[in-house]
Amino acid sequence: MYKAEITVTLRPSILDPQGKAAHHALGELGFQGIGQVRIGKLIELQIEADDATQAERIATEAADKLLANPVMEDYRIVIREASSV
Amino acid sequence: MYKAEITVTLRPSILDPQGKAAHHALGELGFQGIGQVRIGKLIELQIEADDATQAERIATEAADKLLANPVMEDYRIVIREASSV
Repeated sequence: MYKAEITVTLRPSILDPQGKAAHHALGELGFQGIGQVRIGKLIELQIEADDATQAERIATEAADKLLANPVMEDYRIVIREASSV
Repeated sequence: MYKAEITVTLRPSILDPQGKAAHHALGELGFQGIGQVRIGKLIELQIEADDATQAERIATEAADKLLANPVMEDYRIVIREASSV
């Protein structure tokens, strides 16, 4: 059993209204020195696979087909053995 | 300039309907061997701070006050120097 952490982030050229709202709210709360806020997704998958390579292949396919929008988003994947999590 | 990556995840005891929906959709697409899907947030902050300790203090305060819901969510913070990103 493996655990895949898929981090999906908006491409830098894409506006992030949720991040802008959080940035504004932090300013209202008195936070200083916060330059930019970007908000993405973290998707954790438990995957039954023979080895880490197969688990990464499944996670990559899931990201390409469903979890990330290839036009607006980038993703990166980290695979861990579930027993070590 | 530092970059804080704040990973916000639902506590294990909290139901994750968004994750359930993704799990169901992956099954419909023919994916096999995917045991559980949990979806959280990744918040990236750019922080002007004197050192990494101060940057982490600011990020922790932002998570506690605004970015995470302490009843339902856990968070973890990674601080990096922005030049190394």
